[in-house]
Amino acid sequence: MTRTKPAGTPLGDGFHVYDTTLRDGAQREGISYSVTDKLAVARLLDGLGVGFIEGGWPGALPKDTEFFHRAARGELELDHAALVAFGSTRRAGSKVDEDRQVAALLDSGAPVVTLVAKSDRRHIERALRTDVAENCAMIADTVRHLVDHGRRVFLDAEHFFDGYAFDPDTSLRVLEAAAGAGADVVVLCDTNGGQLPLQLADTVEKVISRTGIRVGIHCQDDTGCAVANSVAAVQAGATHVQCTANGYGERAGNADLFAVLGNLGAKLDMPVLPEGKLRELTRVSHALAEIANLAPDTHQAYVGQSAFAHKAGLHASAIKVDPELYNHLDPADVGNGMRVLVTEMAGRASLELKGAELGLELSPEAVGGAVRQVKELESRGWSFEAADASLELLLRREMADSALETPFELESYRVLLDHRDDGEVVSEATVRVSVKGERVIATAEGNGPVNALDAALRKALVPHLPWLESVELSDYKVRILVDEPGTDAVTRVLVESRDGEQEWTTVGVHANIVEASWLALCDALIYKALRRNVTAASR
Amino acid sequence: MTRTKPAGTPLGDGFHVYDTTLRDGAQREGISYSVTDKLAVARLLDGLGVGFIEGGWPGALPKDTEFFHRAARGELELDHAALVAFGSTRRAGSKVDEDRQVAALLDSGAPVVTLVAKSDRRHIERALRTDVAENCAMIADTVRHLVDHGRRVFLDAEHFFDGYAFDPDTSLRVLEAAAGAGADVVVLCDTNGGQLPLQLADTVEKVISRTGIRVGIHCQDDTGCAVANSVAAVQAGATHVQCTANGYGERAGNADLFAVLGNLGAKLDMPVLPEGKLRELTRVSHALAEIANLAPDTHQAYVGQSAFAHKAGLHASAIKVDPELYNHLDPADVGNGMRVLVTEMAGRASLELKGAELGLELSPEAVGGAVRQVKELESRGWSFEAADASLELLLRREMADSALETPFELESYRVLLDHRDDGEVVSEATVRVSVKGERVIATAEGNGPVNALDAALRKALVPHLPWLESVELSDYKVRILVDEPGTDAVTRVLVESRDGEQEWTTVGVHANIVEASWLALCDALIYKALRRNVTAASR
Repeated sequence: MTRTKPAGTPLGDGFHVYDTTLRDGAQREGISYSVTDKLAVARLLDGLGVGFIEGGWPGALPKDTEFFHRAARGELELDHAALVAFGSTRRAGSKVDEDRQVAALLDSGAPVVTLVAKSDRRHIERALRTDVAENCAMIADTVRHLVDHGRRVFLDAEHFFDGYAFDPDTSLRVLEAAAGAGADVVVLCDTNGGQLPLQLADTVEKVISRTGIRVGIHCQDDTGCAVANSVAAVQAGATHVQCTANGYGERAGNADLFAVLGNLGAKLDMPVLPEGKLRELTRVSHALAEIANLAPDTHQAYVGQSAFAHKAGLHASAIKVDPELYNHLDPADVGNGMRVLVTEMAGRASLELKGAELGLELSPEAVGGAVRQVKELESRGWSFEAADASLELLLRREMADSALETPFELESYRVLLDHRDDGEVVSEATVRVSVKGERVIATAEGNGPVNALDAALRKALVPHLPWLESVELSDYKVRILVDEPGTDAVTRVLVESRDGEQEWTTVGVHANIVEASWLALCDALIYKALRRNVTAASR
Repeated sequence: MTRTKPAGTPLGDGFHVYDTTLRDGAQREGISYSVTDKLAVARLLDGLGVGFIEGGWPGALPKDTEFFHRAARGELELDHAALVAFGSTRRAGSKVDEDRQVAALLDSGAPVVTLVAKSDRRHIERALRTDVAENCAMIADTVRHLVDHGRRVFLDAEHFFDGYAFDPDTSLRVLEAAAGAGADVVVLCDTNGGQLPLQLADTVEKVISRTGIRVGIHCQDDTGCAVANSVAAVQAGATHVQCTANGYGERAGNADLFAVLGNLGAKLDMPVLPEGKLRELTRVSHALAEIANLAPDTHQAYVGQSAFAHKAGLHASAIKVDPELYNHLDPADVGNGMRVLVTEMAGRASLELKGAELGLELSPEAVGGAVRQVKELESRGWSFEAADASLELLLRREMADSALETPFELESYRVLLDHRDDGEVVSEATVRVSVKGERVIATAEGNGPVNALDAALRKALVPHLPWLESVELSDYKVRILVDEPGTDAVTRVLVESRDGEQEWTTVGVHANIVEASWLALCDALIYKALRRNVTAASR
């Protein structure tokens, strides 16, 4: 076993933060963790300070068996968390000590086992095809067997809320069978995710007062209420909460660990994580999205990139005076930051704030000029809220900032697209630039016009300016803006670039999609030159 | 005014479903609606049967002023909803009948006005820099002025919950000032989004019992609880709920209209929409995402593509026996479908339905072939949901339908894009086609590569096939699909065409945006030829 006696949370055993990203979270469409991924996820969760990490279902899934094997072999050292193996009770009509799946739970070496069991009479009779008495015996036998072997046991009571509504006595008998045999916590699961907070809290309260058993909560998000349901259950007396990172899970997903921790830790002041760890929520959330190979949800509560981004001009002037009046908490408390988005709705105040955020000293005239320019450009389809780098260039141009001087000038291009008779499509771009006073012409191919332009620019500039080599185009977005019927549509292009240290986004707008892309590509390179000048100046 | 007396919801005025996608939803980062977009959004919401549609802030944003102008001019006919203009009260220390912004609210022609006002003493004193008495006078004066001019008035009490916690008397005075002057509903706004359901429900209940005023609710999602908070408020007595489509909104967003309607309509059996309209939730949600140019959230409660998709092996066999034990409601009730269980069958069924709808006699083999092809293409980024014409071509190709014979063949093209030294950008396309056995080459210019291609195709074909002249490209949408990192992004293009009688949409997917556009343009012309053949055959 990785640890002989599990510690529960480092804050004592009174409240359990229990993560099931590696088991229930992995049910999300599109997630497919390797064993190495699983180990990395567990390390991040442990570093955050959760109390329990459910690693998977050993004996049922080969990857999960291997995960526990490698963890036990020393590949996973946990500072805070206890590792949990998930599995089911013995089968109906069999003996627990002959059950191979139960044996696999012991073999996993995990100090804690969470058993899943039916707690809805309809499921017992129609899916399991047994009766309530045998279902309770299966639970009691298995719990006792694991406890006798030194394991701590929790019970996931599947479909509890639907079952309780249908036949409360059966559902309570299931809980009592588990607790009577030595399970420490019975976890009420809203497996189909159909609950709403007020009713759910009421049920949790009733269960606790009727049984006196320690209760946990596990919510799915099918009504969009998983986070709220989890918090409401805790307020109603549950002392164990099961979540997944970023709410990953089957169908609409599970209760999002980060929102639940934000709500319990920052709103209700419960010491759910070790001191100071709430500040790591944002970082850990994004790292876990990276491992799951999913783009972070920019609008996620607490940890999303936009969670503290203010757009409205109405608010921006007031935010400058009193940020705490416009944020539900200090974004730094959860490791996030406040951003101000500059849009057609924003005025002077947003641009001043933006300037301050960038460390620019803007004169009132420069701000006035920038406001006019932003408004004018946005009325023609430009949008700076996602294009921070283009906005910075615009502000510095208004300041006539000398850091804008670049050793190159981008002059013109020609792109040729050829769909040949044999069906092949060729894109070729030729650019003309001047670099350090010298005129350079370069031609390159690509899998599309923008890709070819990017390649040709690179071919022209990099031999003369090797520091541009690290810049790469990491994302490209296009939006066609149709306004009045009869008028020409314009195209807005956003280009995201990175150089290993930083990421930045630039924008271009034009009736011609390739020209719009060219404008955004040019800004991306000029921004790189600017950053280099600024860094050199600060040395 | 578009309507002299607003109808409220078609279910009577007892409960208000109020949508603010066009105002508060538009604050979401990345959304930038054109006026045409706004009209399309309003039509979809009205078709769904919401009671009130907040169109924007006339007088503050030029696009919003124009939206109301065009709506009043007859471009927006509403069957269910009343149109609402949003704005603020008169300024401190001024007269209401001299306030230009208030005048703009009347000028908008909207029969309902929602006024926003401060209800937190700290905001009144520190952001507005006035006192509670003047704040209440500003509200009362403006409400009375609008009511005297025949408008129905609601009050959005900003920062209500934070304000009530800080100084309840001030917050209640604000509500009473509005109600006393004739406001029909005071809407308690969780502007910073920091509330949790149990506390929020408690506050709503107290406010109603202390004031007797009709109360609405407006929630932001900063704790991940906006949907739950909205539902809890309704259960506590609120009879007006403000939401946005798909939860679009500033920061973490607003309460998602579709989840709130699902919860109130399907879970709590409230008649929040006209009979049968809950079944349109999924379709309307996706259409609104399309207009916002945002990918639909696949894991969204009720309406997400994965909301009823079952992956868990544990459940798979049982789901077949008893689907209702594993879904929190019948997915069809909200216009969604269960996946996994019958993916293949569902695919077949919908294609068979589609075939019947088009009057095609599809053999089982043709359906099987089409299912395989759709799956294969969709895995590479194609999407036929919005491209009916391309889907019809695909089905007819599987049938080897003779109506597909066209008098032209589109062979190849070359496009030249030139950004010249003088800054001018030229797009020129040459196409090679064969028409009635004759090879034709034509060259044309356009304001972009696709426009030039379209012009060249037209120039090549129309002299020989004059019936193609009426076809015009009416809309063009682009989405870059980035899937696995490391693989190349592909571009999906949707082309909408019309000929004065019909509109149809075609799709093209390719790594090269111009090639993707070419594929969609070709399908558009082939579809026109097909329709002509079918019409001729039926005569």
